[in-house]
Amino acid sequence: MEAKQNGPNGELSSSVVPGPTNPMVTPLLTDLYQFTMAYAYWKAGKHNERAVFDLYFRKNPFGGEYTVFAGLEECIRFIANFKLTEEEISFVREALPSSCEDGFYDYLRGIDCSDVEVYAVPEGSVVFPKVPMLRVEGPIAVVQLLETPFVNLINYASLVTTNAARHRFVAGKSKMLLEFGLRRAQGPDGGIGASKYCYLGGFDATSNVAAGKLFGIPLRGTHSHAFVSSFMSPDEIVDRLLTSRDGSTICEDFVSLVQTWLSKVQWSNSLHGSFGETNQSELAAFTSYALAFPTNFLALVDTYDVVRSGVPNFCAVALALNDLGYKAAGIRLDSGDLAYLSCEARKIFCTIEEEFGVIGFGKMVITASNDLNEETLDALNKQGHEVDAFGIGTNLVTCYAQAALGCVFKLVEINNQPRIKLSEDVSKVSIPCKKRSYRLYGKEGYPLVDIMTGENEPPPKVGERILCRHPFNESKRAYVVPQRVEELLKCYWPGISGNKREDLLPLKDIRERCIKQLEQMRPDHMRRLNPTPYKVSVSAKLYDFIHFLWLNEAPVGELQ
Amino acid sequence: MEAKQNGPNGELSSSVVPGPTNPMVTPLLTDLYQFTMAYAYWKAGKHNERAVFDLYFRKNPFGGEYTVFAGLEECIRFIANFKLTEEEISFVREALPSSCEDGFYDYLRGIDCSDVEVYAVPEGSVVFPKVPMLRVEGPIAVVQLLETPFVNLINYASLVTTNAARHRFVAGKSKMLLEFGLRRAQGPDGGIGASKYCYLGGFDATSNVAAGKLFGIPLRGTHSHAFVSSFMSPDEIVDRLLTSRDGSTICEDFVSLVQTWLSKVQWSNSLHGSFGETNQSELAAFTSYALAFPTNFLALVDTYDVVRSGVPNFCAVALALNDLGYKAAGIRLDSGDLAYLSCEARKIFCTIEEEFGVIGFGKMVITASNDLNEETLDALNKQGHEVDAFGIGTNLVTCYAQAALGCVFKLVEINNQPRIKLSEDVSKVSIPCKKRSYRLYGKEGYPLVDIMTGENEPPPKVGERILCRHPFNESKRAYVVPQRVEELLKCYWPGISGNKREDLLPLKDIRERCIKQLEQMRPDHMRRLNPTPYKVSVSAKLYDFIHFLWLNEAPVGELQ
Repeated sequence: MEAKQNGPNGELSSSVVPGPTNPMVTPLLTDLYQFTMAYAYWKAGKHNERAVFDLYFRKNPFGGEYTVFAGLEECIRFIANFKLTEEEISFVREALPSSCEDGFYDYLRGIDCSDVEVYAVPEGSVVFPKVPMLRVEGPIAVVQLLETPFVNLINYASLVTTNAARHRFVAGKSKMLLEFGLRRAQGPDGGIGASKYCYLGGFDATSNVAAGKLFGIPLRGTHSHAFVSSFMSPDEIVDRLLTSRDGSTICEDFVSLVQTWLSKVQWSNSLHGSFGETNQSELAAFTSYALAFPTNFLALVDTYDVVRSGVPNFCAVALALNDLGYKAAGIRLDSGDLAYLSCEARKIFCTIEEEFGVIGFGKMVITASNDLNEETLDALNKQGHEVDAFGIGTNLVTCYAQAALGCVFKLVEINNQPRIKLSEDVSKVSIPCKKRSYRLYGKEGYPLVDIMTGENEPPPKVGERILCRHPFNESKRAYVVPQRVEELLKCYWPGISGNKREDLLPLKDIRERCIKQLEQMRPDHMRRLNPTPYKVSVSAKLYDFIHFLWLNEAPVGELQ
Repeated sequence: MEAKQNGPNGELSSSVVPGPTNPMVTPLLTDLYQFTMAYAYWKAGKHNERAVFDLYFRKNPFGGEYTVFAGLEECIRFIANFKLTEEEISFVREALPSSCEDGFYDYLRGIDCSDVEVYAVPEGSVVFPKVPMLRVEGPIAVVQLLETPFVNLINYASLVTTNAARHRFVAGKSKMLLEFGLRRAQGPDGGIGASKYCYLGGFDATSNVAAGKLFGIPLRGTHSHAFVSSFMSPDEIVDRLLTSRDGSTICEDFVSLVQTWLSKVQWSNSLHGSFGETNQSELAAFTSYALAFPTNFLALVDTYDVVRSGVPNFCAVALALNDLGYKAAGIRLDSGDLAYLSCEARKIFCTIEEEFGVIGFGKMVITASNDLNEETLDALNKQGHEVDAFGIGTNLVTCYAQAALGCVFKLVEINNQPRIKLSEDVSKVSIPCKKRSYRLYGKEGYPLVDIMTGENEPPPKVGERILCRHPFNESKRAYVVPQRVEELLKCYWPGISGNKREDLLPLKDIRERCIKQLEQMRPDHMRRLNPTPYKVSVSAKLYDFIHFLWLNEAPVGELQ
């Protein structure tokens, strides 16, 4: 693709935007009907008519009252590199009826997205139903081809980011949240996407190495049950030597040192001799893992029995490491009553800190995993627990509680003619016209309402009284005097407009925007149970126009 | 990667198996702990110990009693090309603590899957909880690295295939099932995977062009609401010429021909003048679409009002096409009461067939879409409907009813020593030992029970009385005299075993196996409500061994 400058300020040319993260995102990653429609538009000579589409959803997911918008960068990467290859064109030719004229394939050969404009809410923003996250304008045949990939790239991204944000909200700011979902995700880049967007939504790290490499997300991980059960007994450990942290001493037999500490722990008075024999394969696995990672010793303690085997074995190894100047990293619990077990483990760690004078041992990090979700996090909080970090997988990445966000892409204007999509279900009626949208903030700094206006209406002004109307419900309306007005849609792909293009920010910055925006919301919109809906409105002028158009388009029936 | 012959019979060498469909499936598409464990194994000198892992799930999805296994080919493509690049090794080095020794990275540089063996149930087979779908054997460090990608590639594949099979079961054999899920899928290859595996599970076609190209799946698609509302009125149609199907006549003004037919339909006596004015933008869109696709005219009829506008407009265009020797393909309904609307549309089609003598018009294909799932299909059946084809999206591809299948990968043997994973939750205890499994068939040809045995036990024989025991419940056992015995695990990657490698079949053949196997099941296992669980068992010898090992590993507590 040729390089071209997209604006007057010498911003990045389209050719320097890299392609989509997943090389499978090509112009063919679309529904066949986008191509059949493109042909019909072309055949009717309509393909270059300028159309405006809105991308939005109708209902917040997970029973909540907010959504986080994500997936924008991938959309921009896609259109920046949008070009059908000869091979792709041949395939489209095979897929369409043979009666389709050759000229159409010449047309396909020539199209790119240089005359498409994309206005979007910045990625990581909090968004609400009906208000466009994207407004896409361009030749109708080209913009239709973008519908399916755009919706695909935004639907799951926004859903899983919102899910991550909700998990963060319940867990609280101080907890470490780790995304462990790769194996249960819906396909390979279900996994990679989940890792990216969970980080965006407020998670701290992932187990997914590929995502770490692609997006610079911090990585976390230790060992599994299989590692524990792959050992038989400490006798099989051959290389037992461990140099102390500062390099000053060498422990010739770390295995013996561990055994010594195990006896001390087992016969400790303060622990009331509460441990019997611990599992020897587990002890061997922990010792071996510590020899491999003396600076990062974190053990999974539930392969046999957390309190009677896993925790005492861990403590013996951690105390042996402590003798050599190393500080163990902590334990992971992956089954059972996590609240109870974390409290029991904490008690033992504190007792050991006291009895053996190992400062900080009581603060050992406890990680919990195993089928966690919003509800279980909430239940753990209510029960009281000692977990410092949560590893969350299946429920987070597959969005088990609600596996899809219903984003739609609706034509709102063509050739400057506003269009409406009617439906017997009022919630499915589209809001016509090329629009602008604004977020109005109140005195306390909270957003109060989003308002959509016609493209050419004067923007709402700070300190002015503005009538905000529900788009479809006549009786719902309110006056607002905003203290701050924020225009929501920014230009991310200027096409032929000459507008300045917004930069695509690094993932970390998007993550910070997300966290900041969520913190800015009024708390009653955010609570898990019965949150207050955030208000979404249209200007008085747009309201009148919607209803004029509606009456105009709807067929008049006859009562019989 | 060097070519090498994998068996005595000169089958395909590893180098000719293509890589995974998604190029993002690399050795880094794994959890970090697979690499930390690999390092710990290597450091302990255990990395080449021969381990056997089973991949299985614990519970059938969607409240059913069966699952279809899918994802195998992608796993084999992955291991056939498994090799870390220098860049990947550098990244692993960054991700691990700096204390890790250099020798480990040399080791990583050298590994591939030439000494790994994979035995699997053939893709597209019906499978049940606890019975391994895959048995993977090889050097423990290497096999652990495969865990996450294998589980990722199989979990969603099997889940969505099963979902598709369940939709087919409810819809019945005679209906056309179309997968329309790309835009709502969990990421780009959530979409591509869904299309592939829904076809495998019994769907007929997809809307996803990329999947059509990759897998040869039939493609379907027509137009959207946006296409309809992009038109204003028939006046805007410039090119109105249409040649008749046989080329004998030319209609100079197809738009007028349509208008003529519309009046006839509107004033038809048999239709009791039930139509008023139809929507003109819709009429223009249909006419235009017919001009583009005279041989494939299928119209979405619910943009304004199905019965009062969409269907009469469709009929007018279809009748005009009929004059020129073209047969319209049908309508699509995408909202409202699909049962009622399909019946109303059918009535109109039949009336037109009679009144205007257009033979076959009554049999016009009616396609329905809009939030369909197993329940709505079932409800439609109960209500009575006239739908011939269903387009199913969100609920199908995201597996909305249950967004994950909990596949696990458990160590069952290392260095010929059987291993068990205990758990307070009995359903989570793993079944130890390198095993074989068999499906035993009864007199009527139905499968009766799956039985797992130790690797070296003699296989069950036809006509012999075999004791099948529940693996964990002492009291559940039954004698079975099989009429046919099928060994379930076949060799798909022989490693160093010298076994013959099973061919990877084309998707169509896998789809046929799936459909055939589902038809072979006893009906009570398949019904939607309260299906009978299929029995899964172990041999008497394996039962005894499991319980011996269990007692041996479990810690003995003291009641206090």
